[in-house]
This record gives sequence, C-alpha cells and structure tokens, in this order.
Amino acid sequence: MIKAGIFGASGYTGQELLRILIRHPEVEVVFATSRKFAGKMVSEAHPSLWQLTSLKFVDASPEELVSQVDVVFLALPHGTSMRIAPVFFKSGIKVIDLSADFRLADIAVYNQWYGQHSASDMISSAVYGIPELWRDHIKTACLVANPGCYPTSIALGLAPLMASDEIDHDSIIVDAKSGTSGAGREPQTGTLFCEVNEGFKSYKIGGQHRHIPEIEQSLAQLSGKNVRISFTPHLLPVNRGILSTIYVNLNRNLKTEDLCGVYNKFYRDESFVRVCPVGISPNLSSVRGTNYCDIGLSVDIRTNRAIIVSVIDNLIKGAAGQAIQNMNLIYGLPENAGLNMVPLFP
Amino acid sequence: MIKAGIFGASGYTGQELLRILIRHPEVEVVFATSRKFAGKMVSEAHPSLWQLTSLKFVDASPEELVSQVDVVFLALPHGTSMRIAPVFFKSGIKVIDLSADFRLADIAVYNQWYGQHSASDMISSAVYGIPELWRDHIKTACLVANPGCYPTSIALGLAPLMASDEIDHDSIIVDAKSGTSGAGREPQTGTLFCEVNEGFKSYKIGGQHRHIPEIEQSLAQLSGKNVRISFTPHLLPVNRGILSTIYVNLNRNLKTEDLCGVYNKFYRDESFVRVCPVGISPNLSSVRGTNYCDIGLSVDIRTNRAIIVSVIDNLIKGAAGQAIQNMNLIYGLPENAGLNMVPLFP
Amino acid sequence: MIKAGIFGASGYTGQELLRILIRHPEVEVVFATSRKFAGKMVSEAHPSLWQLTSLKFVDASPEELVSQVDVVFLALPHGTSMRIAPVFFKSGIKVIDLSADFRLADIAVYNQWYGQHSASDMISSAVYGIPELWRDHIKTACLVANPGCYPTSIALGLAPLMASDEIDHDSIIVDAKSGTSGAGREPQTGTLFCEVNEGFKSYKIGGQHRHIPEIEQSLAQLSGKNVRISFTPHLLPVNRGILSTIYVNLNRNLKTEDLCGVYNKFYRDESFVRVCPVGISPNLSSVRGTNYCDIGLSVDIRTNRAIIVSVIDNLIKGAAGQAIQNMNLIYGLPENAGLNMVPLFP
Amino acid sequence: MIKAGIFGASGYTGQELLRILIRHPEVEVVFATSRKFAGKMVSEAHPSLWQLTSLKFVDASPEELVSQVDVVFLALPHGTSMRIAPVFFKSGIKVIDLSADFRLADIAVYNQWYGQHSASDMISSAVYGIPELWRDHIKTACLVANPGCYPTSIALGLAPLMASDEIDHDSIIVDAKSGTSGAGREPQTGTLFCEVNEGFKSYKIGGQHRHIPEIEQSLAQLSGKNVRISFTPHLLPVNRGILSTIYVNLNRNLKTEDLCGVYNKFYRDESFVRVCPVGISPNLSSVRGTNYCDIGLSVDIRTNRAIIVSVIDNLIKGAAGQAIQNMNLIYGLPENAGLNMVPLFP
Repeated sequence: MIKAGIFGASGYTGQELLRILIRHPEVEVVFATSRKFAGKMVSEAHPSLWQLTSLKFVDASPEELVSQVDVVFLALPHGTSMRIAPVFFKSGIKVIDLSADFRLADIAVYNQWYGQHSASDMISSAVYGIPELWRDHIKTACLVANPGCYPTSIALGLAPLMASDEIDHDSIIVDAKSGTSGAGREPQTGTLFCEVNEGFKSYKIGGQHRHIPEIEQSLAQLSGKNVRISFTPHLLPVNRGILSTIYVNLNRNLKTEDLCGVYNKFYRDESFVRVCPVGISPNLSSVRGTNYCDIGLSVDIRTNRAIIVSVIDNLIKGAAGQAIQNMNLIYGLPENAGLNMVPLFP
Repeated sequence: MIKAGIFGASGYTGQELLRILIRHPEVEVVFATSRKFAGKMVSEAHPSLWQLTSLKFVDASPEELVSQVDVVFLALPHGTSMRIAPVFFKSGIKVIDLSADFRLADIAVYNQWYGQHSASDMISSAVYGIPELWRDHIKTACLVANPGCYPTSIALGLAPLMASDEIDHDSIIVDAKSGTSGAGREPQTGTLFCEVNEGFKSYKIGGQHRHIPEIEQSLAQLSGKNVRISFTPHLLPVNRGILSTIYVNLNRNLKTEDLCGVYNKFYRDESFVRVCPVGISPNLSSVRGTNYCDIGLSVDIRTNRAIIVSVIDNLIKGAAGQAIQNMNLIYGLPENAGLNMVPLFP
Repeated sequence: MIKAGIFGASGYTGQELLRILIRHPEVEVVFATSRKFAGKMVSEAHPSLWQLTSLKFVDASPEELVSQVDVVFLALPHGTSMRIAPVFFKSGIKVIDLSADFRLADIAVYNQWYGQHSASDMISSAVYGIPELWRDHIKTACLVANPGCYPTSIALGLAPLMASDEIDHDSIIVDAKSGTSGAGREPQTGTLFCEVNEGFKSYKIGGQHRHIPEIEQSLAQLSGKNVRISFTPHLLPVNRGILSTIYVNLNRNLKTEDLCGVYNKFYRDESFVRVCPVGISPNLSSVRGTNYCDIGLSVDIRTNRAIIVSVIDNLIKGAAGQAIQNMNLIYGLPENAGLNMVPLFP
Repeated sequence: MIKAGIFGASGYTGQELLRILIRHPEVEVVFATSRKFAGKMVSEAHPSLWQLTSLKFVDASPEELVSQVDVVFLALPHGTSMRIAPVFFKSGIKVIDLSADFRLADIAVYNQWYGQHSASDMISSAVYGIPELWRDHIKTACLVANPGCYPTSIALGLAPLMASDEIDHDSIIVDAKSGTSGAGREPQTGTLFCEVNEGFKSYKIGGQHRHIPEIEQSLAQLSGKNVRISFTPHLLPVNRGILSTIYVNLNRNLKTEDLCGVYNKFYRDESFVRVCPVGISPNLSSVRGTNYCDIGLSVDIRTNRAIIVSVIDNLIKGAAGQAIQNMNLIYGLPENAGLNMVPLFP
C-alpha cells in the first residue's frame, strides 16, 4: 500500500482527497493535518465520514511527518505550500501540490500575480499535471503542480484546437461559471448561503483573475504561440462544478461535425474525457462526483465561431480527482484506480 | 381607473402582471383568462394571491371580452397572440403583447424563425417596447411588442456603445444565463426541480435561439448597421433573473472609467437603469422583484475588450414590469407607477 | 414624517428594516448604524439598495444620536440591545427592540437562558409585540419587545386554540423549519452555501433552543396555564421563511372544518393572517416578501390530533415587518402602512 | 454474474438502480425497460451515464424478457408491478418490487389505500425488505417487497424502541421531510423547479398519506401491538434525502445517553446504520449518495419525550440501494457489495 499524507485536510479539497483515498485500493492515508481540528476525529470536520475512518487530524511540522509517507498531497493556500513542499521533496517523497505555488514556470509571472516565491529553485522540477495533455512528464515527476479548476476545464476544452491554424488564437474568450465550493470553506460573508443562493454574478472581470497566467501558459504550450484570452469567472449557486463556455473565431468554415471529429480523435483513448454527441450540451450534473470532463461542441455558422462547452466537477477533475489520477500515473497504477465513480444525478 | 385584461394569466408572466397590477394605483384588472383554470379563483393557480384578489379566471373569446377593457396584456405563446390581438387592436383597445408575434419588423424573418404569421398587416403598427431606448414611439403606440427577456438585457447593456465607432460591431459575443421561470410553467421534464437544481448547462448553442433576430434587430436600429452576434443562453438554477455577459472588441484604448462615463451619461435620466460603480459587478439578487436593469462595466486592457454585465429580473423588466412601464407611458402616467419596488434580498 | 433610526443596519434584519422604511409613506430614516461599514454608503453593505438611499452608515454612541429621532429600531444581538435601549427609552424616544432582551417578563428566566441582564428595570415597561394578540397594549407602548421569528409563527398558529379546554395543553409539539437568513449575516462555517445547500438538519433538539421560554410565555398568557412544549428547529436550504408544524392532542372529536371555523373567527379582522381553505397547505413561497402569516389546518381523525401549519417570512412578520407594524400601531397609522406588499413568487 | 433486468428504468429510481448495478461486481444488467425511450440509448434518458453503458431501453412484455434474467427489479408505479411480477415469480425468477404492491400483508388494507389488487395470491409470499430488521426472511425470499422511502426511515428510526414498554406507543408523531426526487420524474406543475425552489410545504396532512399503513404494519410487527401514528410529510427543496423527526413520549425518565446506548446496541453489527454521537444531529448531506441511515437521538427532559432524527438518501437506502442490499442477501453476497459508497459532500 502507498502511504499518503494530506496537508490541509479540513477544507473541501482536503475532504475530497480523504473521501476518494478511503476507497482507493492501493493507498492508505496515514495522516491528515488541520490546525483548527488538531487532535479531533476527522468526522468532526467531515460528519459524512463518520465511521468511515478512524483518523485524527494532526498539526505537526513537515519534519515530523516526512518519514511516514510515500506521497504527500498539499491542499493548502498558495504561499503555504511552498513552505511545506521542500521538506518532502528533498527527502524524495512524491509531492502533489494542489495550490498555485508550482504551476507557473516563469517566476516573474508568479511574483506579479501571487507575491514573492520562497522555493523558486523547485519550480523547474515541477510538472504541470493534466494527464490527458502531459501524461509522460507526469509519470516521472517528483513534484506535481496540480492544476487549478478553471485552467483544467479550459485546457481540456481547447487542447484539440490549439495547434491548429484554423483558429484565430487572438480571439479566445472564456466565460466560466463555478460552483461555490471553489471558494473554499473559510467563513466569509460572500459565500454565505443567503448571499449566493438565488443570486448569480461575475467577479474579477477584465483580466484580473489569478488563473489567467496559468491558463495562458497551458495554451501557449499547446499552440506554440503566445496567447492572450479574456476570462470572466462567475459564481454559481450550486455546490460543485465548473462550466466554461469558450468562444474561438475560425479561420475557415467548419461544421459542428468536423469539430466533433477533431475532438473525438484527440480524446479517443481517454477514459475521463467524454465528447458529447452533436446537439448535446453537457450539464454540470452529469459529471457530479466524478473525474470526468464532458465537452460539448458547436459551430455558429452565422458568425463562424466555435463554441466549446466544457464541464468538470471542480473538486474532482478540478482538484482532488486529478491529483489522484496524477498519483496513479506516478505509481504506474491504472489511471482510474479509485476514480471509477458513476455520476450522482439527481 | 384604467380597465385592464390579462390573457394567459395562469403562467408565471401572467401571475406577475396580476401581482403588480393589484397594487397599481391607476389600474383595475377586470378579467384574467386561463383555459385550465376557467371558473376558478385566481388563488387556485396562484396561492400567494389568496385574499388579494377576488377575480376568477375566465375562458372567453376575445370578442366577448373586448368591450370590458381599455388595455389588454397578452401573456400568451407566440402564434396565439396573433390570433387574439387583432380583435382588440381593431376595436381601439391598447394591446401590449408579451409574445414574440409583433417584435420582428421583417415578416420574412418572423416566418423563418417562428412559422407563418396570421396577422402580418398589424406588424407595421407595432412599437417595440423598451422605454429607455424608444420612449417617444411607445407613448403613441396602440400595439406594443413587449420585448423578450434576453433581448431586453442585451439591448440595454449595449445601447450606449452601439452608435460608436470605437467598437468592432462584428465582435459582439453574448453569454447569457437565465433563471428557470423563463422556461414557463408548463410541466416538462427539463424544468423539473431535480433536473435543474445543482445543474447548469447551455442550450440552443451556435446561433439557434429565437431571440437572436430580435436582438440583432435592436442592435441594427441602435447602430445603423447590420450586426451579427454570437449568443449562448444557459439555464440557471434560480427562480428569477437574467445575467448577460457581453464581450465587444474596442477599436481604441478605453479605460473602465471611460466606459462608465459613457453609460452614466446615456442613462442619467433613467430611473430603472442603474450603472454600477467601477469595480462592482451586478448580481441577479440585487434586482430581484424589481424593474431595474443593473449594468456593470469593465475593460480588459490585456485584450482591449469591453465586458458588459447586465442583469434584470426576467419576469419584471424582462416581461411584466416592462409591459406595465409601457402602459404607463401610453397613458401618460408616471413611468414608475406601480413599479416602485425595492429589491428583495436575500 | 416620523424620524427613525436603525441600530445594526448591516445585517439581514437591519437591511429589511431599511428596505421597507425606504418606501414607508410616513417615515424618514435618519440614521443607520454599523461598526463595520461606518462612513460607507448603505449600498456598500446592501448593493440591492444602490441609488435607493443616500444614507451612510454611522458608528456613533446612542447619546450622540438620541436627539435625531422619534423612534429607534434595534436590530442588535441580545446583550447589546439592553445597553443601547435605555438611552433612548429614558429620553422618551420610542424603542422597538428586535433582540431578545426585553421579551421575557421573568428576569430569572432571562438570566438562565441568556445571561445577566443589565437593564432589568425596563423589563416591566416592555410590551411584547404581536399586534394580532396584544394590539391594545402595543398602541401605548414606549418599549416594544419585538418577538422572535419562531415564537411569532407559533403564537399565531396556536392562539385560537389556547384558551380552549378542547385541547390537551401538555401535548403540544412544534416541529419548526427556518430559512437560513434566520442565522444572520455573520460569517460562520455552518451557514456557508455549501454547508446548507442540498442539506437539511435539526439543531438544538431536546429543549435547548432559547426561543422556548419566549414561546411558553406567550402560550401561558393565551391559555392562562403553564405550558411546556417540545420544540425542534431545523435549518432549511432557502433564504427566507419559517414553517412550523404544530401537533396538539384534542380532548374531543373535532373535524378540520370545525378547526377552520375557529381560526376564521379568531382572525376575521386581521389583514396579515390568512387562514387557508380546508385542504390547502400553506407554502413558504406564498408569504415571501410580505408581512403575512398563513395558517393551514387539519385534524387527523385517526389519532385525534390537530395539526396546524403556520408560515411566515422570518425577516418580515418574524422581524422587520412586525416591528414596523408595531410602530404603525404606536403612531396611530394604518396598521399596514408600508407593509402592503404582494408575495413574490416564484 | 447475476443477470438482472430493470423495469421502469427511465425514472429516478430506475436510473439509480442502473447507476449502482453498473459498478456491482457480481451483476450484469441485461435489460432496462422504458416505454417512452424504447430503442434509445440509456444515456438519452440519463446523460450522466454517457459511455458508462451501451444498453438500450426495450419495451417488451415480461413474457419476452423472462428467460434472460436471474433477478428482476420493478421500479414501476403501484398497480403496474402487480401485473409484471407474476410472470417472473412463477418462472422462479427472483423479484424485487420497489412499488407498494406487495408491501401490505392485509389485502383489505391494500384495497382501501391503493385500489383493487390483481395478484393477491402472491402477497403471502412477499417478504418486506428492510435487512436490518428482517434479514433472515429476506435471505430466502423469492419476492421482496422493497419498502417505501418514508417507511424505511421511520422503521429504522423507531425499531430499537418498539419492543420496549418504556415508551407510550400511542404518542408517536412523525414529522418527515423529503427531497423532491421522491416525487418522481413525471412532469407535473408541482415539482417544477420554480414551484419547489425557495418553497417548503407539508402535504397530505392529517393521516392521508399512503405510507401510513405500511409504517404502522412495521411498527406493529416490531412492537407486537397495534400502533397508530400521526405522520406529516413535507416537500424539501433538495434533490435527495429524507429526514424524519420522530417524537415519542417516554413512560419513565431516560437520558439521551441511555437512548444512544439502546440504539448502539441494537445496531452494533449493522454496516449501514450509523448512530450519531450524543449532541450530533444527522444531516441529509451526510448520507447523500450512500446506503446509510444516520440516526440522531435526544431526550427532551422538560417534557420527557424522546426525539429521534433519522436520515437516508431516499433513492438509495429508501429505494435502489436497499433493493440491491436485498438482492445481495438473497444471493449470499456480502451485504455491501456494490454499495460501498462514501457520501458526496458538499
């Protein structure tokens, strides 16, 4: 059994890691940290896990914990991960970091959007972990930068088109909508039930969201070009899920069927990407509780634009599930080990 | 007192007309039709109106009802309105039609998107009823084509920019999200609670929604040019509200402040349009239960695009409220008579 | 115009007072306090009120504010109200306190459930403000203890039966369900969107909720007996509303029609209580945004129990609306001045 | 592999059977019937199952299908099951019927609440399938009457107390709240999103719900006495889950700890019943997507009543999950085969 530790296990992402790893056939969770719940049963923070685990939260230093595990998942805020990761990394423990700390290859870009980096020497060792796009690099990684939820949905949504010269790379607009769990479990007025329920709004409009450099880095890698996008996130009154509606101008006339053909070919061997049939729009509720990314495709022949709709469960394919998929790759396990869930609808 | 009749009063729009007119200082509702509830108290279909009205639904022909009213509101499906409207129109009764039947000036376009029109001779008499944009025409109208909910939010969101040559008129993309009441009250699987709740999806992607010609007609009128847009509607798990996120490429560098200046000037005398301060994104929940249209503005200087976010309550500014605003104009009443509500939050 | 001040105006109850008083024909709001938002526009805390008021929040001592108003509303936590109220009360300003501080006539009971009282000399001056039950006392009150949301729904639901010897006063069970706005606007994990949405739970089961002594005090007053009830509150994933399902054993056989007769008679002159017809169950959504209390009645003849279902909007009849109704009474205004809303459905 | 067929597979319960059986290690689904979707891919009715099954719906007679399966699940309305079941039963195929048709042992009671029974000769062969209470009977059953969702939550909630003389068997009151999937997938106005969302109501109050005789039959069997309860169902604006709040008068003084002791002992070997620690109230969201029944306990010492709160996922422990648990028992499989899910929160 692979011994795994989880840092930041009392939040939604940490809980999702626990939830999935509890049933993973090859993994044993040996510690879960939480400052707030230290010494308490995991089920005090996560009542749904009552009787499913006898783990207690610990609040120990990385140095104290480093000898216990083979792999560590960091479900921590950016800025904190970079202080924990080095201890494990330097001891040869596999590190899967779910924060933004190791996602941006260009340290200057990191510093501009997130502030000063304290472990910049490790950045070049980090592998950006979207298995469908960079599987081979991940297999040998010691440090995985697990992607953001929005960036995952967008990179998967655009990947089959990025290397093509049939699209106008300057025309990409992403209108994205995220469920509220994406905002985390820290109490704040803006994510109270009454503030979110029956409401809907955009936020950080006009090129202000920190996921932009991460998205553009992926698109640049896929296309070999600098790409600038417009990205508008919105807050949805649902628990889970991200839906990204992506607009791209086409340089020549394509039909929806052509587009589907391109995507089906690109993703034909992928078990976690489902390309919808022509005429079907994916729904958040069709991927809930799973590691799937569903993609719907359409060409607006009136304006000659491709419209791509990509949906994921932000806590799974957008966080914990993808992290575990990356771990599976590193350990040579079946990629869907522990991730074999069927969507929960309704 | 103005005597008003409502056709199609058992649906959500019909109920909203009733709800507002019950408190309108200058209007008395004299009949409300419903085939399904004929002979029953209005409160059987609308329990919230219990004891607020003693009206019973009728199921009578327009000919039987025409002598009772000064104005008639048609909250009917397209295709049905065009059969009812002529009876009233020809008797000199003011007609405010909330269907699509009289919105499109070009009969060929109507026929293409909706099917054969049976009262095409009346189309040229119809005035498209967005008071903030075409107030003077509405004042003297005998037949108002009350706009669709999406088109209202988009026309108000774009109007201040359309006559400008600082925007690229070919670049307009509208990503719109509607609450579920927009789908009406007829039972169908797709709008059952369990299908919508915790879900989110786009529909009629790729230039297929019937509101497109209506939107483009407004934009053409405002700009003096043919305009083609991409329009993607989505279904939101909320009862009320439409939020349209609108993307427009700019021909020259503008700042968000400049954009706000343009909008504030354009709407400075309007009581139902609220331009948000720089940095504030409008929220569906801030207009709930009112006739407001709130507009938020941003320029993405990285891509030189304007991003406009427009929100309305689809049943009020997007339907019943605007219809009553149009009626107020026709009768020379204060434009906000009966529409003086404060948003209901939370 | 009556000059009114609001303490604690940045929470949900405070906002609701503002929302209603903005349209009250006889009231002008002259101040609204908030520590957190002091100096800022009211619309910074309440974006829905943008352009509806030019008030700014103040953070001033009661002594500084006492000369500005005729009446003051205290939307404060218990323990805080008792420190603010005396300044106004002793200057002859009408005080309407929405906290629990002056609701319990027996100071020992207060101390047991809430802690030490610092203004116990004022308790005997306080009038418990449910107009339908104690209207005459309220008219001459200088200090109104505005009732809790649960207690209002329960007292109104049981009042017509309490003086009767046809019920078993020891058998009363109240199973109550409240929307989340009842938990206030302070950020806490338990009321985050993701914790509440798609969930449902009871809390403070087994005689632990602080509203119990208040409820039993009302029932004692109405019945002339000591009454002990079982009361189980639940948290509903909706913004607004309380529904109380009340069970009472009957001492003799009654029919549902008999029960309706009793209630219709008891409430025949009340404009804010609507007794539902036989066979109709009230719905939270039928009172949303209004000062109504809707009551549904049924006798389970198999077990000879009366089942009474009472619904209110917790922020209106359960808080701000009732407070304003009480103010109307004190000033001899029509009881529904400013409270003439039609329910917002859907 | 056990060959299973599903009748009525396009509804929510049918889909849930499919969802779980797709991952069951010992079962292969060989047919799924639907009149409406006959000939179409299962994913047309259930988009979430896209690529997870290649099954197509059939609309064939039981006679045509009987030779294909070892076990058949009937997710059909009452009245329909009794026409399908005999064909399979008489051919020695195991039948697990999720309708009410074989739940009531007394045919007179069935006829009174549901109408004429057409297969009454089979009733005595049916075993009522709550494994935790009647496991041994189920193991040898050929026809399982799979319990209703409300009755399951109530029988499990009360079972440990029913044989005790420390409770007053005449005092039982059940206030139950169900998520909307319990109302099925047939389009009807009352379960439209806008009717349910932000609403809450009771229905069939006063001894009118058809689950009452089923509940009382279980309680009689557990207690050896005739038991009459008051049962009030409510409709919750959530997709899944039933929470039953149960009130019972105690004949002698008990403490909450005593009650927990009784329940822990009763359920100590059960893997699907989780008794909550003292002070913890179960939440619908803690059992979502699982076969768990969570039970919270409290004694109100002021009134000497026990208050029991029982929660299940209505589609799983209240329907499909329990059906599969019953099948596992019949085939001697581990009781949790295929049912090993971890709750999905948030």
